[in-house]
Amino acid sequence: MSSTPGARNGIGDQIAAEDARVSRTRADVSRAALDVLTNEGWEAVTHAHVARVAGYSKTTLYTHWPSRFDLLGMALDAIGDMPHHEMTGDARADLVGELHEFRRAISERRLDRILMAMAQWGASVDEIGRMRQRIVDDGQQYTRRIIGEIASGPDLDAAVTMLSGAVICPALMYGTLPDDATIDAAVDIVLAGLRRPEQQA
Amino acid sequence: MSSTPGARNGIGDQIAAEDARVSRTRADVSRAALDVLTNEGWEAVTHAHVARVAGYSKTTLYTHWPSRFDLLGMALDAIGDMPHHEMTGDARADLVGELHEFRRAISERRLDRILMAMAQWGASVDEIGRMRQRIVDDGQQYTRRIIGEIASGPDLDAAVTMLSGAVICPALMYGTLPDDATIDAAVDIVLAGLRRPEQQA
Repeated sequence: MSSTPGARNGIGDQIAAEDARVSRTRADVSRAALDVLTNEGWEAVTHAHVARVAGYSKTTLYTHWPSRFDLLGMALDAIGDMPHHEMTGDARADLVGELHEFRRAISERRLDRILMAMAQWGASVDEIGRMRQRIVDDGQQYTRRIIGEIASGPDLDAAVTMLSGAVICPALMYGTLPDDATIDAAVDIVLAGLRRPEQQA
Repeated sequence: MSSTPGARNGIGDQIAAEDARVSRTRADVSRAALDVLTNEGWEAVTHAHVARVAGYSKTTLYTHWPSRFDLLGMALDAIGDMPHHEMTGDARADLVGELHEFRRAISERRLDRILMAMAQWGASVDEIGRMRQRIVDDGQQYTRRIIGEIASGPDLDAAVTMLSGAVICPALMYGTLPDDATIDAAVDIVLAGLRRPEQQA
């Protein structure tokens, strides 16, 4: 809401100032919640700690975002778009590029911690479930599009989840990330497997 | 430690009784911690709640297992062996069978919650990291053995993590589980992909 000439320093300006303040608080808390989540993990996302990092009082946080999953929602708000590889039109190169970006998002932006916090709450809190859906769909969109040109149905679903799994499973299960050779092998196996003879009948 | 004839009702018996009591407490708390973790998720694994479920005082729990990851370690102790499909010798049938068992462990025993709690702590707490390694190795051992007969190196690693990913990724990313057709497709893609022409040279 912006002020009009006839309302200088009047109600219009007050509302505009109030809006700006609320929206700045929101952006600060959102960014702080994401920083805490990715740097320290979900355990650290408490009202006291996020308030301290954001530079607001604990009371302010409890007033606007009373539960811990409200804080998770704020963190997810700050994520923005998932990083993507620039498409070249070559399926193999583009899939490898996307998996490298996914791996980088885990190592540099701790996307694994975000995914696990979302998994923990996504099933029971509708709003988190919807945000998770949006973030995952965004993350998988290029992989799904590339595979969608050569497969459909269960083959498409299996291939997309397996390629995600090639990156996220080592992180989840062993706390490691796949090396380049393993990512190459994953893409080669999936592409050759999707073109298996019985599928081309 | 067991009593000796010469020490009836003496120190030996006292120590034996004490050992039995400690070991019963340990088993009760271990089972309660696992129940809380799988039924209610990691958020619910607190000293107060596990003590209530196990029927012990909060003080007893804090004395023996002072931190929350001590409670996680207790829960992991109670897991026992991972369920496995009975091997038939047919690679396709055995891989499909193993993925069905993995899916059932997620839906019935909430293995996904166990994996996520381990992922959260496994990186920073050595003991949890070791227990995770043991549980994951046990879970993947048959899949790794079957794939190991037709592949090695990056192909083997990629295939094993992708097959795990076909089951765990939908749970992690969408809160769903793959249907039979998607599991079949995953196994067919991987088996055909591993036998791709350039690999047989």
